Amino acid sequence: MKIILDCFGGDNCPNSAIDGALLALEENKELAITLCGDESVIGAYLADKTYDKSRINILHASEVVTNDDLPTLAVRRKKQSSMMLGLQTLASEEYDGMVSSGNTGALLIGATVFVKLIEGVQRATLSPLLPTMIDGKSTILVDGGANVDCKASMLKEFAIMGSTFMSSTSGIESPKVALLNNGVEEGKGNALTKEAYALLKESDLNFVGNVEARELFAGEADVIVADGFAGNMSMKSAEGMGKTIFTMLKRYITEGGLRAKLGYLLLKPSLKKIKSLMSSDTVGGGVFLGVKKVVVKAHGASNAVAFKNAIVRAKEMAEADVCSKIASALGSNIKDTEI
Amino acid sequence: MKIILDCFGGDNCPNSAIDGALLALEENKELAITLCGDESVIGAYLADKTYDKSRINILHASEVVTNDDLPTLAVRRKKQSSMMLGLQTLASEEYDGMVSSGNTGALLIGATVFVKLIEGVQRATLSPLLPTMIDGKSTILVDGGANVDCKASMLKEFAIMGSTFMSSTSGIESPKVALLNNGVEEGKGNALTKEAYALLKESDLNFVGNVEARELFAGEADVIVADGFAGNMSMKSAEGMGKTIFTMLKRYITEGGLRAKLGYLLLKPSLKKIKSLMSSDTVGGGVFLGVKKVVVKAHGASNAVAFKNAIVRAKEMAEADVCSKIASALGSNIKDTEI
Repeated sequence: MKIILDCFGGDNCPNSAIDGALLALEENKELAITLCGDESVIGAYLADKTYDKSRINILHASEVVTNDDLPTLAVRRKKQSSMMLGLQTLASEEYDGMVSSGNTGALLIGATVFVKLIEGVQRATLSPLLPTMIDGKSTILVDGGANVDCKASMLKEFAIMGSTFMSSTSGIESPKVALLNNGVEEGKGNALTKEAYALLKESDLNFVGNVEARELFAGEADVIVADGFAGNMSMKSAEGMGKTIFTMLKRYITEGGLRAKLGYLLLKPSLKKIKSLMSSDTVGGGVFLGVKKVVVKAHGASNAVAFKNAIVRAKEMAEADVCSKIASALGSNIKDTEI
Repeated sequence: MKIILDCFGGDNCPNSAIDGALLALEENKELAITLCGDESVIGAYLADKTYDKSRINILHASEVVTNDDLPTLAVRRKKQSSMMLGLQTLASEEYDGMVSSGNTGALLIGATVFVKLIEGVQRATLSPLLPTMIDGKSTILVDGGANVDCKASMLKEFAIMGSTFMSSTSGIESPKVALLNNGVEEGKGNALTKEAYALLKESDLNFVGNVEARELFAGEADVIVADGFAGNMSMKSAEGMGKTIFTMLKRYITEGGLRAKLGYLLLKPSLKKIKSLMSSDTVGGGVFLGVKKVVVKAHGASNAVAFKNAIVRAKEMAEADVCSKIASALGSNIKDTEI
């Protein structure tokens, strides 16, 4: 397995990215990683590290896509950036996947332009893997924000891609697919979700009906389907509520004197566990579904462990042959939609 | 001020509703309340209470709208229910407002049918008052879920109604109006929010631009404008995240042994404060904007204090003459929209 790692563009780059790559190599003996970015900077950081030199190489890139870059301009004008050069190399050579923590919009458009959409796919999605209340279980949200104006047939496509992702990477035979909606009953929804409900109901998917945004983290569904605007609303609102609760807790602890402070110290391990599980560090990343090769988005604030996890996810997706499976799932299913 | 209270339909009805009415009467000497519902049940509950009998009367209603009733059917077939009779009485007699904790959809449609829309209003909204991180400050979300398919001109109308509500009830001279969107920059959004952004920007409102769903509780804006689907997503997702955090905390405390349990006991007052501020009990209610008289929705699980608060809110809205002010704000503003 050969993975390209975009070492620039995230908050803690390139050091955390490189450390993450070394961690991933240690744990996965069959993995080889190409570090993409300024070779002198990467080389200098690697100089005093111990690692298997046969499984690391550097692809020099002279530019960096920043979060301030407009995605469409980044794709056109920064072809020599670590992100865009990485994507072009992924597309043209014998690589299995790529990981980046950089500008999400640029990565999505770059992946669509350079790696290209799977035949039959209308749009690629950014799909975060949400933590849930069920230990060790994740739910994939398709779409988490990439496509803000959707047709019902796109939502069906999202469902097929999400279901294929879950069945091939998690070993769930028939993933439960739910539609994000404003009520659980059939008949609820806006014009888009009502139409999508009908398409999903008559599909071959294991469609379990509507799910409300308050059940996003309940873990009942394996795949939650949404247009990118609704996906963005529900993700960001959850993130905001988490932040609000922890900010208020901090305030009350400060105001609450010795008793509250002592209570906080004793409860700190539990609170930290929740904070890390539910923070944007965890829910901020995701996978792009619908492009021809594996592209994984690590959260912008990723540390070394988060990078390692993203690299391992890319490797597992490539091993499971997710992209080919999505292509064949859509090949056989998309015809039903195009009436 | 004469307020009608629908005493049936909520979880703790009629007792909490009646207790709430008595609390409201005690605190507000100029208030008179009409309790709507089965007069024998209400009479029996009142029998051993001490209160100013000149300011309470009962309007007998033989039926109850339940949460299982389809809103449109409830309006047509349950005209003698405490909710629908209350709304008809509000419309036809010298009452200033009504409070109900019953079926939200039925209350919205009933208010539209019986109390009627203000001239020039396309749709009434259900607008929750969100708690914020700024002490004592609320933000009104217009719309919180009533209208799931909106045009941009409706969002502008929502903005005008929300701004009028805040300026007349909170004394904020020029309320800050923000548009719920998937990014803060101008140009972000789906087709609807992009068009609404342009309308809001050229309006006379104090439009401060986009706000992301993660800032719902930040308290920066006085009014947040959204279509009802996006409003529903963001509200329910926040509720779900709150629930998730407290459920996980409970689990970790159970697993965490003596240390965690002791920590919890010490932190309990702070945690309870947060839970009550951020729970669906607080954010579940709201006001209907766009109908000719004041209608306040109390949360379905309201206790006596929540009912009292809802009654006081209705009284304050009536005193501030919110409905007439909305009518005149729309009369002078809506022309600009209808190009």
